[in-house]
Amino acid sequence: MSPRTIIQPSRLSRGVRRWAQARHFSDRRVIFSGIQPTGTPHLGNYIGAIHRWVRLQDEPGEVSDLIYSVVDLHAITMPISPEVLRRHRREAMASLLAAGIDPDRSTLFYQSAIPAHSELMWILACRASTGYLSRMTQWKSKLSVASSTTLFDEDVRSSLKLGLFSYPVLQAADILLYRATHVPVGDDQRQHLEFARECVSNFNSTYGKHLVSPTTLSSPELRVMSLQNPAQKMSKSDKSHWSRILITDTPEEINKKVMGAVTDSENYVSYDPAARPGVSNLLRLLSYFDSGSRTPEQLAAELSSENAGLGVLKQSVSESIIAAMSGIRERYLQLLAEDGGGFIDHVAREGARKAQLRADETMAIVREAVGL
Amino acid sequence: MSPRTIIQPSRLSRGVRRWAQARHFSDRRVIFSGIQPTGTPHLGNYIGAIHRWVRLQDEPGEVSDLIYSVVDLHAITMPISPEVLRRHRREAMASLLAAGIDPDRSTLFYQSAIPAHSELMWILACRASTGYLSRMTQWKSKLSVASSTTLFDEDVRSSLKLGLFSYPVLQAADILLYRATHVPVGDDQRQHLEFARECVSNFNSTYGKHLVSPTTLSSPELRVMSLQNPAQKMSKSDKSHWSRILITDTPEEINKKVMGAVTDSENYVSYDPAARPGVSNLLRLLSYFDSGSRTPEQLAAELSSENAGLGVLKQSVSESIIAAMSGIRERYLQLLAEDGGGFIDHVAREGARKAQLRADETMAIVREAVGL
Repeated sequence: MSPRTIIQPSRLSRGVRRWAQARHFSDRRVIFSGIQPTGTPHLGNYIGAIHRWVRLQDEPGEVSDLIYSVVDLHAITMPISPEVLRRHRREAMASLLAAGIDPDRSTLFYQSAIPAHSELMWILACRASTGYLSRMTQWKSKLSVASSTTLFDEDVRSSLKLGLFSYPVLQAADILLYRATHVPVGDDQRQHLEFARECVSNFNSTYGKHLVSPTTLSSPELRVMSLQNPAQKMSKSDKSHWSRILITDTPEEINKKVMGAVTDSENYVSYDPAARPGVSNLLRLLSYFDSGSRTPEQLAAELSSENAGLGVLKQSVSESIIAAMSGIRERYLQLLAEDGGGFIDHVAREGARKAQLRADETMAIVREAVGL
Repeated sequence: MSPRTIIQPSRLSRGVRRWAQARHFSDRRVIFSGIQPTGTPHLGNYIGAIHRWVRLQDEPGEVSDLIYSVVDLHAITMPISPEVLRRHRREAMASLLAAGIDPDRSTLFYQSAIPAHSELMWILACRASTGYLSRMTQWKSKLSVASSTTLFDEDVRSSLKLGLFSYPVLQAADILLYRATHVPVGDDQRQHLEFARECVSNFNSTYGKHLVSPTTLSSPELRVMSLQNPAQKMSKSDKSHWSRILITDTPEEINKKVMGAVTDSENYVSYDPAARPGVSNLLRLLSYFDSGSRTPEQLAAELSSENAGLGVLKQSVSESIIAAMSGIRERYLQLLAEDGGGFIDHVAREGARKAQLRADETMAIVREAVGL
């Protein structure tokens, strides 16, 4: 499949116009979500964000405005070289397109293309409490300090940069800039969405009811665990590449990694997340990709009734992942190849135009309300 | 004098082009300064900033690029109603034009018209230490807490907003966005310029030598003291309107305020800032506006040799201020009248175009360096 078949470039500008008209129907949901550019996505990223975004495109009746951003301004809260950031940004965009984000149905853009993210952040920052921010947990985990750490700790203060400390405000601006009504977030982001609502309430109580308070868009969450240590989430920071499946893995690599997944010494199938985390992780993956929509428990019961061992389970998991990933790897690599690169830039530019339209509307409202 | 005589609107666009060409001469100094929109300026604002900016226009050979901004984004770090902010912004712009800022020789614009100020702020914030910021003094004085206060005081944290805490970074961005080489600052801003240089050094050591480290543009500083309490600076927050002279005061009002200035019980003239702060304040004002460039000491000696009392001194001060302010009041009020308002908007728009040109250049350099 050529990248061109995902969406015809010539249709995009029409897309911008159609989009601009359609979003005036006020009963539409506005869904915003952002993904950090952290390199080639693994299965956890795919299931936790990318695939979820793709599926939102298939909602009946196109009831939602979908706004997806590669949030590259967030990537610089931790040290990253310009070369790596440049590569990661394009890889994030390519993975979204390869996985099926359709620029004609979704607005897809780089956060840094829209200066209003930072602009709105400043305005929100003027009402955001440093006390609230200092109680938030993410800066502590990024600095690898205990969650009980406070800003009082001299060591922490010397290493804590303002960007990392204040980035929940930028994240709030990302959402509020598009007057998003719904935000699909994982458990680790609930605190940040709560903070975004706090920003809305601070702003609206000062300046009038202009910003929209976003609602969490829940879905049954699947935590994808490491294939080598099922007590930990699948992560790109894990030293072992056997611990994760990348969307660039070949079917052979996927098969090898799944077959080599750490489980336990019992060779039968049962779903017991506490006692058998490895086996349960595989069952959840099988359930996620299962065409029959069976729960992990149902799948365990079926395999057990067939006296299937862990080898059979792993083979099924491997096949289901290979089937689900089919084509993504090829499209991803093709998009990143030189010619496809022009297509990524084209999509990002058109997406930024759509995003800018809505951002301009919001900033006009905000400036008028603030008196700027 | 009509506002139109300050600068012909039709010449501004040519001005933009001329400016864009001229600034490519690399030996030009680039001078940036910002003024907070805090309402009708008083004599302290006039001498401390406005008049200084005007005089920089007269430097021989036009060796400087002058970039002056009404920094309205800074105004929202403390609570301010939209109506008041809107009025203060226009008043700041009008007072600069009325005092002689020539949009053809200076770039004059509202900070909030250029989103790149906030954008660059975010990038600088990612390398700015919260420890350094917590040691800065201005947020403490704005919150009216002791300078020994730390961020680690629970009461302080609940009232300290992120905007106020982090605004030195925005101030640094204001300067660095235009690659300013020189910044005319008063004593109370030296700490902030030092911080801006720290931001340059953080950025340049991470990403390469791209940002310009600004130098303080010193000039003999005149602290204008309250006419009612010469131990305090002239301030708009003083309850007594007798304490300050506004640029909108009529000659009669100026005369009354100066004649009513608090001095002391001795009816002779001498310059002794410690023992006779009221008389010394008047002598400094006379010296500032004196056409013969005599020092306060010289003026005191002359008046003393004539056996002049404080009445004579006050009369001279009054006359010198009235002469210096001549026309400013009328131009200011005319600019703020409805028709003049269109002119203010026009100047601000043209100024923003010029500022945007340079901001775009800097942001292109910065984005490339960071990898965005």
